[in-house]
Amino acid sequence: MKVLFCGDIVGRAGRDVVIKEVPRLRRELGLDFVAVNGENAAAGFGITAKICGELHAAGVDCITTGNHAWDQREIIPYIAQDKRLLRPINFPPGTPGWGANLFQTARGQKIVVINVMCRLFMDALDDPFRGVDAELAKYTLGSTANFILVDVHGEATSEKQSVGHYCDGRVSAVLGSHSHVPTADSWILPGGTAYQTDVGMCGDYDSVIGMKKESAVQRFVRKVPGERLAPAEGEGTLCAAVVESDDRTGLATAVRPIRLGGRLPQAL
Amino acid sequence: MKVLFCGDIVGRAGRDVVIKEVPRLRRELGLDFVAVNGENAAAGFGITAKICGELHAAGVDCITTGNHAWDQREIIPYIAQDKRLLRPINFPPGTPGWGANLFQTARGQKIVVINVMCRLFMDALDDPFRGVDAELAKYTLGSTANFILVDVHGEATSEKQSVGHYCDGRVSAVLGSHSHVPTADSWILPGGTAYQTDVGMCGDYDSVIGMKKESAVQRFVRKVPGERLAPAEGEGTLCAAVVESDDRTGLATAVRPIRLGGRLPQAL
Amino acid sequence: MKVLFCGDIVGRAGRDVVIKEVPRLRRELGLDFVAVNGENAAAGFGITAKICGELHAAGVDCITTGNHAWDQREIIPYIAQDKRLLRPINFPPGTPGWGANLFQTARGQKIVVINVMCRLFMDALDDPFRGVDAELAKYTLGSTANFILVDVHGEATSEKQSVGHYCDGRVSAVLGSHSHVPTADSWILPGGTAYQTDVGMCGDYDSVIGMKKESAVQRFVRKVPGERLAPAEGEGTLCAAVVESDDRTGLATAVRPIRLGGRLPQAL
Amino acid sequence: MKVLFCGDIVGRAGRDVVIKEVPRLRRELGLDFVAVNGENAAAGFGITAKICGELHAAGVDCITTGNHAWDQREIIPYIAQDKRLLRPINFPPGTPGWGANLFQTARGQKIVVINVMCRLFMDALDDPFRGVDAELAKYTLGSTANFILVDVHGEATSEKQSVGHYCDGRVSAVLGSHSHVPTADSWILPGGTAYQTDVGMCGDYDSVIGMKKESAVQRFVRKVPGERLAPAEGEGTLCAAVVESDDRTGLATAVRPIRLGGRLPQAL
Ligand SMILES: [Fe+2]
Ligand SMILES: [Fe+2]
Ligand SMILES: [Fe+2]
Ligand SMILES: [Fe+2]
Ligand SMILES: [Fe+2]
Ligand SMILES: [Fe+2]
Ligand SMILES: [Fe+2]
Ligand SMILES: [Fe+2]
Repeated sequence: MKVLFCGDIVGRAGRDVVIKEVPRLRRELGLDFVAVNGENAAAGFGITAKICGELHAAGVDCITTGNHAWDQREIIPYIAQDKRLLRPINFPPGTPGWGANLFQTARGQKIVVINVMCRLFMDALDDPFRGVDAELAKYTLGSTANFILVDVHGEATSEKQSVGHYCDGRVSAVLGSHSHVPTADSWILPGGTAYQTDVGMCGDYDSVIGMKKESAVQRFVRKVPGERLAPAEGEGTLCAAVVESDDRTGLATAVRPIRLGGRLPQAL
Repeated sequence: MKVLFCGDIVGRAGRDVVIKEVPRLRRELGLDFVAVNGENAAAGFGITAKICGELHAAGVDCITTGNHAWDQREIIPYIAQDKRLLRPINFPPGTPGWGANLFQTARGQKIVVINVMCRLFMDALDDPFRGVDAELAKYTLGSTANFILVDVHGEATSEKQSVGHYCDGRVSAVLGSHSHVPTADSWILPGGTAYQTDVGMCGDYDSVIGMKKESAVQRFVRKVPGERLAPAEGEGTLCAAVVESDDRTGLATAVRPIRLGGRLPQAL
Repeated sequence: MKVLFCGDIVGRAGRDVVIKEVPRLRRELGLDFVAVNGENAAAGFGITAKICGELHAAGVDCITTGNHAWDQREIIPYIAQDKRLLRPINFPPGTPGWGANLFQTARGQKIVVINVMCRLFMDALDDPFRGVDAELAKYTLGSTANFILVDVHGEATSEKQSVGHYCDGRVSAVLGSHSHVPTADSWILPGGTAYQTDVGMCGDYDSVIGMKKESAVQRFVRKVPGERLAPAEGEGTLCAAVVESDDRTGLATAVRPIRLGGRLPQAL
Repeated sequence: MKVLFCGDIVGRAGRDVVIKEVPRLRRELGLDFVAVNGENAAAGFGITAKICGELHAAGVDCITTGNHAWDQREIIPYIAQDKRLLRPINFPPGTPGWGANLFQTARGQKIVVINVMCRLFMDALDDPFRGVDAELAKYTLGSTANFILVDVHGEATSEKQSVGHYCDGRVSAVLGSHSHVPTADSWILPGGTAYQTDVGMCGDYDSVIGMKKESAVQRFVRKVPGERLAPAEGEGTLCAAVVESDDRTGLATAVRPIRLGGRLPQAL
């Protein structure tokens, strides 16, 4: 099957390019499933039920999140009842929502999406490695799950690569989010798992990780709080990776980056 | 002029691919200047005088470093007398070595290399922004310096992008290192500065940031110290960015990534 | 001379005990000077002009701060014109306010207060060691300054002790703040500088660092944002250190902790 | 019963004062049980089987550790077979050794020692709160356990206080370690649990957390690696807390700090 995963959507610029391009990509690339990371969709901080609805209407099947999952408090009741919106699986027991979900495509394929968060330079959640293990124990790749996608939301490249190797051969793809910059290291690991350290942000790259650059730069230069951060409003780039796999093994046969619109070098 | 900057060289795999490819790239691309980040060249930790010599013999003009600059203690006297080996400029006064240097190319162009380190999730060095400012005050871009290259060695994409925007229009290129993963965001900022968040490591990518994956993964999974980390020994990928500029303005006219050999998708 | 330094005032419980006890302590102990750290005086976050006025009315000569200096935005114009309110000296140039000030006591003694912030596990300000050096260069201890007090606002005991030893013999006292817990290590360093790693918070200790314990504990247990933090409202403890010194040398002759009111073991 | 807990023993100075004073304290105070944190006993880094033997010979019943547990690799087989040496309970499953143990005193009282590590500004272990919960589920305080002692090894005062309140009424004492500085906040929480944020180090306080001050200060001032850290060799201070409890309820009736020898103000 063919799966697209778009990285952190930041504000209106990110939402616009995703809503514009996903329907076309679904059609032209023959995609079976589309997941996006939506943790910054609402003005850079969190996501709302309304935005989830707009993304689903545009053809997004599953929305993952990360450390910004809870920035909009209204999402807490929503995430507790809509399993198409995930939060990292390694939040402690009792956290609202789900960290993984099994979806069925129009062609009847079964795909599991697992959202997991790293810990280095981030909040101390539960162990991401055991979190993934526990979820993987529920499925047989190539049989009860035709595709398993792991969104590894993390800061340190070392930890994201470690999650990749740890899952190699056991999932179809480990694709990263959170850094808001696409990496150029998409390849298929020796065990058959597609890997890319970060698929990059969907948003305006003439910015600091999607936020207006003037105030964001000043945060580093001056240490006194300045203007509130707000999303940059120039044309957004959709950043994603597309993975092709063999439904009978669940392993990847190809992975490549997508970059459409905005400032970055284009790739399709 | 045309300048190549290769990211963190990790161990033998990284040295081999750099020593093999740089002479050819100099010739085929018509490069005027080659800089590399060498902070992990010596078995993953630091660099030695012998390795500096080998890199210079292969056509490397300038070697930058970062947080691993001092891992090999023998480098301290060396760095104090050879200005072709830099350490980040924002180490406190009294630190051996230099954080920037002016070079002259075979065609007589003047190029300044500035090595600077970020602070977010890293050691608390002096302010990188003021460090760069102080150095830039010595030159006039397009006149006393035909090209100014900033190696921004940092963990957080937000801080590296902030250095990029902060320098935009004042230097020819801001190219990142330290994450050991190439990013796909090379573009020319509005003011004319070429930018890429990280040029990526030169080393074996079937690894965790260049080190053997088994023991590196175990460091995250188990919390008891295990095997010593050692560089992965598979075929290395040279990861770099090449920047073209107008000597009269010092601003960039083109920037693109290079990836040669090893596991990653190739780019030239 | 005899100097009292009270640690971080947290909310009303902290303000009440300071305002109640300082007048009595000034009188009964024969204090020449009183400094307090006020960074959490305004409902746990920052300080206001009104609170500064109340503290001065109670006999506080100087108010220091720390990482919470700017939590109340209204303080920015105030701190820029009243040198009795300090912010850490190692904020970058251009930061509103002052990091040190020279005061004169009723008996004509000259006392310098220096507020400095550590960097380990905190924001990357300028070098605290060079920051203190630059200020100390302006005075001769025992002559142009009869007393020099350093409020070292920091997280790591190692860095605070390092500031103590670094200043030993050059200042009258290095007294810590920020941890909100009094330490029992007051002693006079070999060079004659009084030292205590942290003088402790002024506030309700049946709390988590002065804030209501139920919601503060939940922040560690659950990782989803819960109730807003608010100061605990039980009876506060005034925590401080009192230093006696020889005006002709500026060195300390005695240092002891003060703990009055509230939950902690009392000391006077 | 009456229980003594001594904080992190650093090097020879710490071992000497513990070995000298513990036999006398056992006798004079009528102690039923003595625990120490030994994570820095071996030249500042870890502990050895030989040192464990010496401590037991001096009357130490239980040795806890923390982030330095594994610094001496030889301890791994030892800790796996001697339950008198603990490591934090919230290491992941499969870690050698135990995080808690039930001891019986000479008078037949049952005492459980739980060693737990915080996560803020430290390594990302498993959840300390759930780690303690799981252990507490095995015992009934005042019945199957007459005393439960929690050594909370942590950096941030907020997290240590949170562990205290979380355990209040369920254990006899929560006593902190790791900061290497004794705090002056020993009190009995509302539920009956004795609490002190840190009992302090056993070692030479004319130092930086027990290590020679010259080289330790230079680590903060210069950023280039200097001399190896080594324990300070002056006279050590034993720092501890002594807790008295009611065997039938397991709750604390008194808690006070002990400081003997060396530089700090004495307390007995
Ligand atoms: Fe994120
Ligand atoms: Fe994000
Ligand atoms: Fe680095
Ligand atoms: Fe590196
Ligand atoms: Fe603070
Ligand atoms: Fe504070
Ligand atoms: Fe420790
Ligand atoms: Fe320790």
